[in-house]
Amino acid sequence: MQRKLVAECLGTLWLVLGGCGSAVLAAKFPEVGIGLVGVSLAFGLTVLTMAYAIGHVSGCHLNPAVTLGLVAAGRFKASEAPGYIGAQVVGAILGALLLYIIASGAPNFAGGLAANGYGSASPGQYGLFSGLVTEVVMTFFFLIIIIGSTHGKAPAGFAPIAIGLGLTLIHLISIPVTNTSVNPARSTGPALFSGGTAIAQLWLFWLAPIAGAVAAGVVSRWLQDEAPGALIEGDRR
Amino acid sequence: MQRKLVAECLGTLWLVLGGCGSAVLAAKFPEVGIGLVGVSLAFGLTVLTMAYAIGHVSGCHLNPAVTLGLVAAGRFKASEAPGYIGAQVVGAILGALLLYIIASGAPNFAGGLAANGYGSASPGQYGLFSGLVTEVVMTFFFLIIIIGSTHGKAPAGFAPIAIGLGLTLIHLISIPVTNTSVNPARSTGPALFSGGTAIAQLWLFWLAPIAGAVAAGVVSRWLQDEAPGALIEGDRR
Amino acid sequence: MQRKLVAECLGTLWLVLGGCGSAVLAAKFPEVGIGLVGVSLAFGLTVLTMAYAIGHVSGCHLNPAVTLGLVAAGRFKASEAPGYIGAQVVGAILGALLLYIIASGAPNFAGGLAANGYGSASPGQYGLFSGLVTEVVMTFFFLIIIIGSTHGKAPAGFAPIAIGLGLTLIHLISIPVTNTSVNPARSTGPALFSGGTAIAQLWLFWLAPIAGAVAAGVVSRWLQDEAPGALIEGDRR
Amino acid sequence: MQRKLVAECLGTLWLVLGGCGSAVLAAKFPEVGIGLVGVSLAFGLTVLTMAYAIGHVSGCHLNPAVTLGLVAAGRFKASEAPGYIGAQVVGAILGALLLYIIASGAPNFAGGLAANGYGSASPGQYGLFSGLVTEVVMTFFFLIIIIGSTHGKAPAGFAPIAIGLGLTLIHLISIPVTNTSVNPARSTGPALFSGGTAIAQLWLFWLAPIAGAVAAGVVSRWLQDEAPGALIEGDRR
Repeated sequence: MQRKLVAECLGTLWLVLGGCGSAVLAAKFPEVGIGLVGVSLAFGLTVLTMAYAIGHVSGCHLNPAVTLGLVAAGRFKASEAPGYIGAQVVGAILGALLLYIIASGAPNFAGGLAANGYGSASPGQYGLFSGLVTEVVMTFFFLIIIIGSTHGKAPAGFAPIAIGLGLTLIHLISIPVTNTSVNPARSTGPALFSGGTAIAQLWLFWLAPIAGAVAAGVVSRWLQDEAPGALIEGDRR
Repeated sequence: MQRKLVAECLGTLWLVLGGCGSAVLAAKFPEVGIGLVGVSLAFGLTVLTMAYAIGHVSGCHLNPAVTLGLVAAGRFKASEAPGYIGAQVVGAILGALLLYIIASGAPNFAGGLAANGYGSASPGQYGLFSGLVTEVVMTFFFLIIIIGSTHGKAPAGFAPIAIGLGLTLIHLISIPVTNTSVNPARSTGPALFSGGTAIAQLWLFWLAPIAGAVAAGVVSRWLQDEAPGALIEGDRR
Repeated sequence: MQRKLVAECLGTLWLVLGGCGSAVLAAKFPEVGIGLVGVSLAFGLTVLTMAYAIGHVSGCHLNPAVTLGLVAAGRFKASEAPGYIGAQVVGAILGALLLYIIASGAPNFAGGLAANGYGSASPGQYGLFSGLVTEVVMTFFFLIIIIGSTHGKAPAGFAPIAIGLGLTLIHLISIPVTNTSVNPARSTGPALFSGGTAIAQLWLFWLAPIAGAVAAGVVSRWLQDEAPGALIEGDRR
Repeated sequence: MQRKLVAECLGTLWLVLGGCGSAVLAAKFPEVGIGLVGVSLAFGLTVLTMAYAIGHVSGCHLNPAVTLGLVAAGRFKASEAPGYIGAQVVGAILGALLLYIIASGAPNFAGGLAANGYGSASPGQYGLFSGLVTEVVMTFFFLIIIIGSTHGKAPAGFAPIAIGLGLTLIHLISIPVTNTSVNPARSTGPALFSGGTAIAQLWLFWLAPIAGAVAAGVVSRWLQDEAPGALIEGDRR
């Protein structure tokens, strides 16, 4: 169990450092910046790379909404969820801390670690309702992808590609709306270092992703006809 | 059968929400917008992710032209086609509706949901003939890729990558011409919310993709020498 | 054999239509154009998609230099090379023709189908010597990738990804130098529709890629220790 | 052994020629340049392509830090490390030489081969401490990915994708900080042709990546529970 928690912590650190780091350090670099395409790719690749590196250790959730969605789908033991979620939040905070240390070494560092937000804190000024719908729906489909691609009838070994590039896709769509969370831990780390609005709005980025994930868990349970082909995590990975 | 139709509906919803959503929400975002590369990637990744998530449920067509092309290739039962096509169109409309709800939450929403078009409605002002040729040829090759990569002699498990990135490729080429359809359902959803020209030109985006797909089904049947290695869907997936 | 030649012809048509098409139609589209990243991705994806679709039919060479490099490596019968090369050139010309038909439907079509060139015809004004070195070296490594990734000891099924993304990489590096050929057929199709300098310089885009490919075939034969694990094409695909 | 050293030399040549080449030749190409997204993709694809092409020959390290990290993880014989590192450095120098030959054929060649640096030599003017932390942490996670994805319990065949795209991710994050090394050989080749600051700062790009890699080797040994599933290289590849 100890190894699993360290793996989840390291993996979520990587997700925040890599995803938010690409946004903070490289998105608007003069003339050759990576833009939202690069940031989307970076978020997805943190998950793709870790899923191949530690998927066989902890399942590579890196995200409280994923952990709870898998519980709802009957794929993960509820009793292990609190430990996983704690490790993910700790990892996210450490990732944000490391990013702060690196980013503050530039003469023009303006503060801000790619926190999530709505209304005036939304990159494109999208309101609360748009933000809520976006986070619920995006996390819903994220879990549909995760639960489906790890099903026993899906081609073996490809799930990290589907899941990682699925997260890239989600960012390609929704960064302008909420800066894209679909992951309460990812929202929490940068919010602690950004303060103010980011903390005041943090509730939405716990509530909406978890709601979407649990709904997807229930739907997937029926859609995938769990009985014959599905496996409890650990049997297969 | 019910599960299959729900899967097709959800998948096509995702295709429209993800593909058109990236175009509407993020393509022209100031300074860091994803541009046509990002939109092309998004469309392809909707199919790649869903193919791994629900390919083993419904085959993941998400597209009336694909369904009919597979019928022409002898890979899918004609009797199931109407249900599939209905589910795809419903999903596309729901996807467009969700996108409208999200997009209208921004102060600067200008309307328009990435509908397809030719002539004055073509992003690059390409005429009807260019649009027709483009849609026929692009859908033809899309089905060549689909039918070939799912053949029993092709490497198992990789078809979603080939098909999803094939759709990305098709968008990289042809967005300037017709905004890229190759999928009558994808054209129908946004057209209903855009109205006007998008509805008046909708006939072409049913006619051309289906013509190209059926032609590819016939050619593939010969090219792939169906007899020994091909499988009726359901045998293998 | 007839099926193989049709497959090579269709595949090379797709390579030229897709790769050069993305360059002509979408690279410089105002504000959201795909740029050289998009064009590089498009060229690579034409090969990735076709390799999964027709790799089990013809081997999916789509390129006279590839065919001759495989002959030099002892992986393909010399007696079949002329037919393959003929089919590839025909396909490339048809691809350029289709592209011309589509592109000329825009009011601002300026002519030019992404032909290759050096000196004043190089996108970045690189001289003949730079162009020659670039085409030899890039094709050399392209064949190192092709021959290595299709070796019996390499992971099965992944070669199309390595080869397709290898072509993307080659374009990311060398479009500014020669507009990137590494494929005499790809150079020939657009040159016939561009005329002038493109035809006068065509010799280099036959000579250099074939020289690089044959050298790689010889090196690979030693490097991969052909005896135990290598397979003559057709045994395995 | 001779084949292995030639493979490492050729592979590292390709890494420097491809990665630095894309930066020097194409990153800032007027209007359609590939930017940092393209350069990141190029670096990653050099490793992805070579891992499929020569992974079964030499293991495809292409990087002294990777070689030493694998030694620390108990996956590679220390006695073979000096030969590998020598071959990698020679390959990197040859890659930089080839790039210099090609790049100098353009009328506007300004010198500079994408060397690494900190302080005034950092693309974004990041200081020594930021550069040091970045190189240690990035290489640490690079080795976590490499060691984890090649573990016997990870899905077979996918490691080159995880590792290659992991390097892409690392570049998406950290080019602005140090121009991204995580590879002492990659830093050495271009530094020799750039001279001055690049040579004076070279120590950091040997020290930091090796420190990060060795730390990851030790952590991975515990995290992956090496005993049951891990394989000494050569047993499996």
